[in-house]
Amino acid sequence: MNDSPVRVGLLGCGTVGSALISLLQRQHDAIAARTGLDIAVTRVAVRDLSRPRDPGLPAEAFTDDPAAVVADPDIDLVVEVMGGIEPAGALVQAALAAGRPVITANKALLAEHGAELFALADRAGVDLLFEAAVAGGIPFIRPLRESLLGEPVRRVMGIMNGTTNYILTRMTEAGADYAEALAEAQALGFAEADPTADVGGFDAGAKIAIVASIAFGCEITASMVDVEGITAISADDIAFASRSGHVIKLLAVAERVETSSGPQVSAAVHPVLVPVHHPLASVRESFNAVFVEGDAVGELMFYGRGAGGDPTASAVLGDLIDAAVNLRRGAHASIGALAPARLRPAADAASAQYLSLVAVDRPGVLAAIASVLGDNGISIASMSQSGPDSELGGGLAEDEARIDLITHRTGRRQLDATLAALRSLDAVRRVGSVVRVLSDEDDDV
Amino acid sequence: MNDSPVRVGLLGCGTVGSALISLLQRQHDAIAARTGLDIAVTRVAVRDLSRPRDPGLPAEAFTDDPAAVVADPDIDLVVEVMGGIEPAGALVQAALAAGRPVITANKALLAEHGAELFALADRAGVDLLFEAAVAGGIPFIRPLRESLLGEPVRRVMGIMNGTTNYILTRMTEAGADYAEALAEAQALGFAEADPTADVGGFDAGAKIAIVASIAFGCEITASMVDVEGITAISADDIAFASRSGHVIKLLAVAERVETSSGPQVSAAVHPVLVPVHHPLASVRESFNAVFVEGDAVGELMFYGRGAGGDPTASAVLGDLIDAAVNLRRGAHASIGALAPARLRPAADAASAQYLSLVAVDRPGVLAAIASVLGDNGISIASMSQSGPDSELGGGLAEDEARIDLITHRTGRRQLDATLAALRSLDAVRRVGSVVRVLSDEDDDV
Repeated sequence: MNDSPVRVGLLGCGTVGSALISLLQRQHDAIAARTGLDIAVTRVAVRDLSRPRDPGLPAEAFTDDPAAVVADPDIDLVVEVMGGIEPAGALVQAALAAGRPVITANKALLAEHGAELFALADRAGVDLLFEAAVAGGIPFIRPLRESLLGEPVRRVMGIMNGTTNYILTRMTEAGADYAEALAEAQALGFAEADPTADVGGFDAGAKIAIVASIAFGCEITASMVDVEGITAISADDIAFASRSGHVIKLLAVAERVETSSGPQVSAAVHPVLVPVHHPLASVRESFNAVFVEGDAVGELMFYGRGAGGDPTASAVLGDLIDAAVNLRRGAHASIGALAPARLRPAADAASAQYLSLVAVDRPGVLAAIASVLGDNGISIASMSQSGPDSELGGGLAEDEARIDLITHRTGRRQLDATLAALRSLDAVRRVGSVVRVLSDEDDDV
Repeated sequence: MNDSPVRVGLLGCGTVGSALISLLQRQHDAIAARTGLDIAVTRVAVRDLSRPRDPGLPAEAFTDDPAAVVADPDIDLVVEVMGGIEPAGALVQAALAAGRPVITANKALLAEHGAELFALADRAGVDLLFEAAVAGGIPFIRPLRESLLGEPVRRVMGIMNGTTNYILTRMTEAGADYAEALAEAQALGFAEADPTADVGGFDAGAKIAIVASIAFGCEITASMVDVEGITAISADDIAFASRSGHVIKLLAVAERVETSSGPQVSAAVHPVLVPVHHPLASVRESFNAVFVEGDAVGELMFYGRGAGGDPTASAVLGDLIDAAVNLRRGAHASIGALAPARLRPAADAASAQYLSLVAVDRPGVLAAIASVLGDNGISIASMSQSGPDSELGGGLAEDEARIDLITHRTGRRQLDATLAALRSLDAVRRVGSVVRVLSDEDDDV
């Protein structure tokens, strides 16, 4: 122990905050032995002072005034785990402006105001670290911002929401339909009573905005992310995916594409048919994983717990130690200035696609559908037809057939024109799911 | 660009060195935009000056005297990718002693002399970074030494050798026997003409020595690692593993165990039956992966390319940028002093085990074998018998049966006593494979 204590002010003491206090107490001596630092939480801002708290900290450490913690001259570092954009944003800003390093787990805040907060931290010469904001306990942000800083990263895609991965896993492995799997996830506490942020893809959208900003060095906010959730995925889609050697995953995808006018980036969240042999396919239940493709490094995957008090506290603790070490050295990490993003227009996106249609079952229908695709320059990788009595025939009338097809790589414009043409065919009763397929052809992006 | 160039001296210009030169040239401007640093390789030590070199560097940048590169006052940083313990060790030592940061990919050197080199770097106040020495392109060392510094890590286990993973994958998926799979790996360039370092487990042993040292903060050298390779794994073992819901992987395992006299650590390399649903089971072909278990973070896995010029150069480049940034700030990273290791005696190890025996096929034999296990306090999880005409019966005489069994968690001493007792049974012709089984009971370690 070569120094005075590093005193941490904690904003928020829910699941993550209290897990952090316990973990830091348990590991205090081990951390001191490795770093020479005596790190301790000395002040904690809570919403409700009357709630009983874990022992280990004196009652006077707690306050219900987070601004007082940030302003306290006896605090060296601030950890923000209260969540939400305000008042967390103003508190983080005040701490940085006062020259205090900040560790935050707040994805919503960074996805909205990351660029200005990173710039503020750089001007103040202090750390703003946020490992826990993306993929919970998985140490992914540090490798991305440091180890891969020189890597030509082409694509980062991840299972960044545990709730939806749990629901899709149950649909795949237990044959549950969406409503059953959601109810089960809610009963187990994996999904909120109002599950919109998860199942609508918005939680993953905030995370991929942050990841895309770091990976490509430009400012991408949550509102720039194309978001589609899993609410429209049916048991039949899951069954078809399985029969064709895929599983359906909700992927958050950030891509960088070279165009004739320079590089463009995109960020999106959508369900994807993932080939069963792909490493992301074996990420089950509420686990998260992030898959990185770079020209030099090839393929990487980072796998672990995306949420939960202890895993998130582990990520916060790693950042906290790093910030404490930097503080004592007078150093700080920087992700550099974020340039304005040059977004790829959504209409320029291209990928293999899975389509399902319900059509009248009469001779020539398959040919008519195939010829619409051909006329629009879309090449078909596989096509299958199921009658009302077959495994995939749920909900079909006696005279109907379900047609599932997977295309080769197709541009969004072609696809939209094709869908319109298919809908106008007399024999097509409805177009069902339209889901991206992850395929080797993606390497052409 | 806020500064003079960071000039890199490169020791070794084989696959990794030349990939690094190309990658750095390609990414030079992107790195400058993100960090403000102008990083360039300016001197290169090669073995043979007469070999033609990639363009992009002037001929006078090359020398066949590596000591001259290390001693050059115009060099700011040294990258060592020549491999081997000497002369690489003396060169790294000279560079550190002269106050130059070193990035090395040299697992053999660090597994033997890591502790003294880390201490030397700390005394000199410079970086000694080595991401590329373990698991090639996978950014694992940085998360382990920084993100997980405060995490109570219980176990790190990995597929750290691509050659053996390729061989085992071919044996599993194509039904090849060991000799066929090795020959195939050699034909494809995945295995050396003398494959001992890989198939004997020694390459993975050096890597797990480094990982265990970082994970547990104590000095573990390659000679302290219990090493067993894959040469005794038969096609029948693979077939039995598959039938029982496992795949066989060569795992390098570092564990920390609490005992009544304090924590003990162990490091070993051995074949392991891994349950098919375990994330390590889906790591195929020449890919590597490292799986971490910690009390707070739960389970993590890092997956990617463990070897190859470009992935390894990617890992070196990440370290190089980090060291350059630190150099300009006057900072450096430290893993702290390594304490002497308190090794767990091999006889105290415990795990579930797979055993295969060949016995005379007569009534009562199974009962006799089961009772030897029972007498030694070993509980049997599953047991099966195969005759000479069955799938697993290869090599059996007409009067013989193969008996495969999986035990519950068993101490090494019990197991050794049991094996001796089994060998002394008249009816047992031979004891075949004895392979560790990864099971949930491992959590008791």
